[in-house]
Amino acid sequence: MSFPSALEKLVKALGKLPGIGPKTAMRLAFFLLFSPKEEVSHLAKAMLEAKERVGRCSRCGYLAEDSLCAICQDPKRDRSLLCVVQDPRDVAVLEKAGAYKGTYFVLHGALSPIEGIGPEELHIPRLLKLIEEEKIKELIVATNPNVEGDATALYLSRQAKPLGVKVT
Amino acid sequence: MSFPSALEKLVKALGKLPGIGPKTAMRLAFFLLFSPKEEVSHLAKAMLEAKERVGRCSRCGYLAEDSLCAICQDPKRDRSLLCVVQDPRDVAVLEKAGAYKGTYFVLHGALSPIEGIGPEELHIPRLLKLIEEEKIKELIVATNPNVEGDATALYLSRQAKPLGVKVT
Repeated sequence: MSFPSALEKLVKALGKLPGIGPKTAMRLAFFLLFSPKEEVSHLAKAMLEAKERVGRCSRCGYLAEDSLCAICQDPKRDRSLLCVVQDPRDVAVLEKAGAYKGTYFVLHGALSPIEGIGPEELHIPRLLKLIEEEKIKELIVATNPNVEGDATALYLSRQAKPLGVKVT
Repeated sequence: MSFPSALEKLVKALGKLPGIGPKTAMRLAFFLLFSPKEEVSHLAKAMLEAKERVGRCSRCGYLAEDSLCAICQDPKRDRSLLCVVQDPRDVAVLEKAGAYKGTYFVLHGALSPIEGIGPEELHIPRLLKLIEEEKIKELIVATNPNVEGDATALYLSRQAKPLGVKVT
């Protein structure tokens, strides 16, 4: 191959991103190579800073730069209403719709015995504790409409109902 | 918007890449956020290093980490044969095909009076000097098959022919 090794490395690293095949990786690498240095540093810095600064909200598991996420920090949100989702992206979608005024709980996955994902991995014990401690009135289970999502929803409603919360 | 600002910034920066729309940018940003830190640093480093280390070959204008590119440094290449292309990617494509044993000259564009791209911008004076000094025997003009590419090829052959080189 006649590429400089630093370019080869970049094409390889870009090719590991989801949905980026070898051709797209090469196009992106060339684009970066001929972009102003400041733009390349800006992108590299944005990647590192996002990775460094963004963690999980200690209450709901959504993305947060502080201990609590922007939603859990917002005094206008109804904290007695909890919407359980599988993925932080689900929160982003629901927030964009803008109709929901409660808070969330992000499982970061769904129950999957085959993959070794049980209630512990999804922080379900913490969710149940939160329901008790914060006297949550309504739990909206919005897991994905597939086998794992449905099984997770069933498990959750069985665990949560004895706590006196309304499950929808 | 309920995204942490560092994530917002990353989505924006990724969205500036060619062919990456807002949805893909968000998918990539989330992927990076949940990738191991080492992988994110590896990609950021690869971007910065490629930008820093890879420059242009002083002879042919192709990508090079040293003063000369790997092709111009290769003693097995026929330096009396010069293939003129518009873009470094053209070199990559031709090298992958593997049949060509001469060297290249990369214009990094095509003549375009409207965009203010003249012979100087394409380093054509340097190309003509190289033809004379290295006594190039054959010039293969492989510019793109469009108006600008054809005009560039015509201009080149008119300029090069008086130098006694065979133009194809």
